[in-house]
Amino acid sequence: MIYFDNNATTKVDPKVLEAMLPFLQEQYGNPSSVYRLGKAAAHAVARARAQLAGLLGCEPSEILFTSCGTESDNAAISAALTADPDRKHLITSKVEHSAIIKHAEALARRGYEITWLGVDQNGLIDLQELQRAIRPDTALVSLMWANNETGVLFPIAEIAEICRERQTPFHTDAVQAVGKVPIDLSRLPIQFLSLSGHKLHAPKGVAALYVNRRAKFFPFLLGGGQEGKRRGGTENTASIVALGAAAELAAEHLSEENTTVRRLRDRLEKGLLETIPGVAVNGQPRQRLPNTTSLSIEGIDSETMLLVLDQRGICCSAGSACTSGSLEPSHVLKAMGFSTERARGSLRFSLGRFNTAEEVTQALQIIPREVAKVRQLSNGVLAV
Amino acid sequence: MIYFDNNATTKVDPKVLEAMLPFLQEQYGNPSSVYRLGKAAAHAVARARAQLAGLLGCEPSEILFTSCGTESDNAAISAALTADPDRKHLITSKVEHSAIIKHAEALARRGYEITWLGVDQNGLIDLQELQRAIRPDTALVSLMWANNETGVLFPIAEIAEICRERQTPFHTDAVQAVGKVPIDLSRLPIQFLSLSGHKLHAPKGVAALYVNRRAKFFPFLLGGGQEGKRRGGTENTASIVALGAAAELAAEHLSEENTTVRRLRDRLEKGLLETIPGVAVNGQPRQRLPNTTSLSIEGIDSETMLLVLDQRGICCSAGSACTSGSLEPSHVLKAMGFSTERARGSLRFSLGRFNTAEEVTQALQIIPREVAKVRQLSNGVLAV
Repeated sequence: MIYFDNNATTKVDPKVLEAMLPFLQEQYGNPSSVYRLGKAAAHAVARARAQLAGLLGCEPSEILFTSCGTESDNAAISAALTADPDRKHLITSKVEHSAIIKHAEALARRGYEITWLGVDQNGLIDLQELQRAIRPDTALVSLMWANNETGVLFPIAEIAEICRERQTPFHTDAVQAVGKVPIDLSRLPIQFLSLSGHKLHAPKGVAALYVNRRAKFFPFLLGGGQEGKRRGGTENTASIVALGAAAELAAEHLSEENTTVRRLRDRLEKGLLETIPGVAVNGQPRQRLPNTTSLSIEGIDSETMLLVLDQRGICCSAGSACTSGSLEPSHVLKAMGFSTERARGSLRFSLGRFNTAEEVTQALQIIPREVAKVRQLSNGVLAV
Repeated sequence: MIYFDNNATTKVDPKVLEAMLPFLQEQYGNPSSVYRLGKAAAHAVARARAQLAGLLGCEPSEILFTSCGTESDNAAISAALTADPDRKHLITSKVEHSAIIKHAEALARRGYEITWLGVDQNGLIDLQELQRAIRPDTALVSLMWANNETGVLFPIAEIAEICRERQTPFHTDAVQAVGKVPIDLSRLPIQFLSLSGHKLHAPKGVAALYVNRRAKFFPFLLGGGQEGKRRGGTENTASIVALGAAAELAAEHLSEENTTVRRLRDRLEKGLLETIPGVAVNGQPRQRLPNTTSLSIEGIDSETMLLVLDQRGICCSAGSACTSGSLEPSHVLKAMGFSTERARGSLRFSLGRFNTAEEVTQALQIIPREVAKVRQLSNGVLAV
């Protein structure tokens, strides 16, 4: 199997599993318990918090563990709105993850006003449009660091600076960026940042929200005093330990993402562009995650293509896994101004540190052949 | 080590770990992905849903996986309030878990009216008081199935029937009841029921909310279309598989909870009552979980006692782990009308299927001796 869908989810690193296993076995204490078994769990959670803070360049106390990127996103928006209930305006973009879009749509139904920033054909927003959109009653600007479908990177430092100048809280959904691009929160005026463990070789079901120590925060999950009274609920000790270990490994492998993984992605992309006629890259090709390529392939339907490639052992996707199964074409590619047909013919390949040069070589043999077959089929010609 | 704190958290059953491990290794697909690796994860989640439904006597489609009991509780309240925004009244009790109490307090600050039902010295509510409290604008009655501190069981069938007659939605926090007492939701008019994996030998970080198929529901986490569009967020596959396996094991061991575990608890309780002067059981002794005993011991401070017992290898608690560390005496015991002194001298022992008769024998040797020492110390007499 060739797994080229690391933006959907990643394989748990065996070292991460090794770190978490004791907490699924003998170290089962509740971190809130006062006896040694509990204290050991609490220490492990504290260590993981420091490891993750190390990756992000923030204080451990600024890390709040959550259950998924969606919860982190929801919690950030909720906190910003609760902090200043008189501010009823939110700015976001048309290419965000559904965790932001669905929340913003729900707020719109409750009387909030949403400014939906558009993107150009490269997938980039207009910073002047952002500047003009900020108002005195803007409760939050929420813009993603890296797009999950195209890998396009928004200029987060510039966006954060614009928000700082206008004293408007800024949240970034960095679920696809953390572990793939350098992030140093000590140098950026960001209030909230979301990340998710399963995008960086930790298990599913654990994530985090960075909350700047100067930002007002109100808990999203109301209950016990866990996470410094910022999130009720017994700590997911084993998975939190896993996220800490994964963060430390991500820091070690960060340069590799930008050398080895980038070279593999570039070779795959270049090879497909050269061997398949009628292929185009979606999104600004330079201002992009090093591991992702989104390609639109003329004359194919991506859903069919995915199943055919699966039969040949290649895992990739048509866009976000979170919205797969829906018949709607990608909202990201539509927002970039592409036709429904182009959106329906898109494939995303997202690589990771477990991929090899041999896999890319194999994929470059398999994919063009299968594209040709699917094109023949859709032209009514029986494939051999 | 003798672990008598199973209401705080439980050891993951080795069979549960075995079931979940493949999903932390090679079976790492995103359940939303269309290729086989993803489908395998989706099938595993579906199987776990059926296993949990089997334990509860409901339909698999009525199970919604969440990240913790607190999220389940918060989601149930939030759904009920969203379903009928004109109803601004909530009924709950003074002895609920903080996931309910803190949420209700936050709602009170937002203009909701909360009726806080009191309890008698046995820890039981007055059903006539409940009946009188229900109003046309009552959005939800939320009452726990089993109290986490005393183990006292509310008469859920009668409460559910009262709510049904008055057409008022009913939620029960059954986090401490599931796996310990028989539950058959096919026979009970309950709209929402919360449970948590780590209370029944699954890992921390996975839980569920039962949503009756006729109940109106609105997602608490807004995002992708996971969980039948009822909870955004990539599924915590490995832990969901674990919860399914734990539910199946809980069904198999249910009679054991009410025979073996109950006998161990009864012997421990009886032994401590007989050997330590000035001990009283907190809560209705018959209408109680089979595994729990809450004892108030004159002349001791429970925090000191916990540390002393920890030194002797016994893990137990003063009350809820979620509120430990706070200096407040137990809100449950205070609500039962006990003095602060009695509340501060309480210890909770909660047993489970991994406890043995030998452990109870040892505990009955250790605890009376250590209580005597602590009493001597607090009387200013140096312990030997």
